[in-house]
Amino acid sequence: MKCVIASIAPRAPVIDLVHDLPAHNIRAGMVALEAAIPYLPKRAVVVAVVDPGVGTERRAIAGAVDDFRFIGPDNGLLSRALVRAQTVVELTESKYFLSQVSSTFHGRDIFAPVAAHVSKGLALDKLGPKIDSLRTITLREPARIRGVITGEVLHIDRYGNALTNIPAPWTTQGQKLTVAGQQLEVRRTYGDVAIGVAVAVPSSSGTLEIALRDGDAARSLGISRGDPVEVRS
Amino acid sequence: MKCVIASIAPRAPVIDLVHDLPAHNIRAGMVALEAAIPYLPKRAVVVAVVDPGVGTERRAIAGAVDDFRFIGPDNGLLSRALVRAQTVVELTESKYFLSQVSSTFHGRDIFAPVAAHVSKGLALDKLGPKIDSLRTITLREPARIRGVITGEVLHIDRYGNALTNIPAPWTTQGQKLTVAGQQLEVRRTYGDVAIGVAVAVPSSSGTLEIALRDGDAARSLGISRGDPVEVRS
Amino acid sequence: MKCVIASIAPRAPVIDLVHDLPAHNIRAGMVALEAAIPYLPKRAVVVAVVDPGVGTERRAIAGAVDDFRFIGPDNGLLSRALVRAQTVVELTESKYFLSQVSSTFHGRDIFAPVAAHVSKGLALDKLGPKIDSLRTITLREPARIRGVITGEVLHIDRYGNALTNIPAPWTTQGQKLTVAGQQLEVRRTYGDVAIGVAVAVPSSSGTLEIALRDGDAARSLGISRGDPVEVRS
Repeated sequence: MKCVIASIAPRAPVIDLVHDLPAHNIRAGMVALEAAIPYLPKRAVVVAVVDPGVGTERRAIAGAVDDFRFIGPDNGLLSRALVRAQTVVELTESKYFLSQVSSTFHGRDIFAPVAAHVSKGLALDKLGPKIDSLRTITLREPARIRGVITGEVLHIDRYGNALTNIPAPWTTQGQKLTVAGQQLEVRRTYGDVAIGVAVAVPSSSGTLEIALRDGDAARSLGISRGDPVEVRS
Repeated sequence: MKCVIASIAPRAPVIDLVHDLPAHNIRAGMVALEAAIPYLPKRAVVVAVVDPGVGTERRAIAGAVDDFRFIGPDNGLLSRALVRAQTVVELTESKYFLSQVSSTFHGRDIFAPVAAHVSKGLALDKLGPKIDSLRTITLREPARIRGVITGEVLHIDRYGNALTNIPAPWTTQGQKLTVAGQQLEVRRTYGDVAIGVAVAVPSSSGTLEIALRDGDAARSLGISRGDPVEVRS
Repeated sequence: MKCVIASIAPRAPVIDLVHDLPAHNIRAGMVALEAAIPYLPKRAVVVAVVDPGVGTERRAIAGAVDDFRFIGPDNGLLSRALVRAQTVVELTESKYFLSQVSSTFHGRDIFAPVAAHVSKGLALDKLGPKIDSLRTITLREPARIRGVITGEVLHIDRYGNALTNIPAPWTTQGQKLTVAGQQLEVRRTYGDVAIGVAVAVPSSSGTLEIALRDGDAARSLGISRGDPVEVRS
């Protein structure tokens, strides 16, 4: 993908937004992308490819949110990023693709070349027809009912931290979090507990994260993606 | 290696061609490099280092194919890339190396600085004497005999997909592939099968790949590198 | 972190010094950083973040060594890099931080923006008050007593090689190294032994490294970080 971009837009700086996303996990990609948006440099063109449906009927899309552009498959991956989109188009103009398009790697053959052209100023309406609706991914939205906060584990990172979708500001230090049949405490930071102790702390993206000081929380506690999480005083 | 390149050629953009290659696997490196060649930007200088024989008598080489340059150990890694080489030289001019050359990391001490100098226009014939023959790696070349196609598993990627060396255009949908004592179907793309089902599909590099929809094919089916593969109707 | 840097210093080239450091391992980070220093390009600004104490009272610091700048947590990570520092300051001037500072990711919120400003010429004394002492990490320093060399395993890399802190020039070929109850030979390079044989060789950073030709030495020999190592004739 980077070679393709460099061939079309040699002076475009390229940033890897994330490494080591869990394979095939559209939901984790969606969450990682959403967390990066507040930090994107001006006029960023984002290519996002978690694409298990590549080669099937799923559409390829590009969308504009203010001066950002997002390009990828229409499988939910971009659904949070494009919530406030001014424009979304389906990518149908094959003259902006590589001349040979494989059925297994549209990241290289479609999304990267389209992104390179967009970074050079190509308007989205040149890429294909506007579309009105996207595929979206449903999360168990976090809720607060009578002092009990509920949510879910969105993904497990490579350190074994379990990221939830519960906004950290909803919680306070000393509350009890229950996950996978185990209870732990909400604290301000990893350093507040001893080595080997599990704890829930505000994550770098503003939601609550379950961590084990200097260890792998998901493995030790048996936490999986999608597990329900509950916080109460 | 990137620091060394930046010290000699500060304005050279550097692209990582691949991450997470299996360690010590010259064959996988050779295949990954060959797959990247059609996408290289103009005047690319490629440094390839899978080098278990570093510090022994194996030669260091550089070769030219049209406006591309390839630099690395003479252990087979470059043998596919340099099949059509106009020139290959042995790297002997130590003034283009770092002043201290370790016996364990020629990537940093020899190949990176040579590549940086070449990217600034240094001609290959300044680097050492021309050589006529390279070490090559023998693959079980794919064959078609009376409707039966045979080949081998070249490498297992980090998703557990098993890449074969069988050209995808030799095969058709619905054919049966046998590997590791198991049979699966040739289809057009992962999305053609249900989650958890194994399938053979055209890979992004044009050969047949064995995948498990949303899973790890190599682990589930017990596939290893070098395993023979057979396809028939 | 790269987005934050690109937002403040869009033309600063960024190099990843290392991938796949063991998580939470300050000592491994310190060793990896020290090994990179001889190869840094001129005027390099280094951001180092292995930061299990993020959000606690540990200080954030920046130091100058000649024309290099080092930025990160004051937890020992920078202690080798800053041994010869002309200046070290504590980062207290929050106007060079992101406007919102999380309690879990100072790499993004403090160290990256400070580094971007420093790369544009900001003097360290604008960042906060000078400090006199740093947290340091104690290693079992290598020693030579009556022909017996002792040291320790500093870290295990992703190939399973065990890096020691014993200077390779102290040793000679044919000496015996003992680690984890097993004995192996000091040789010049991996290629000097057959596939599957364990060996001690000079590493790319100048210290002795324990490797298994084409295999994982740490797993096969049961070596852990911190294990004592002894070399004798």
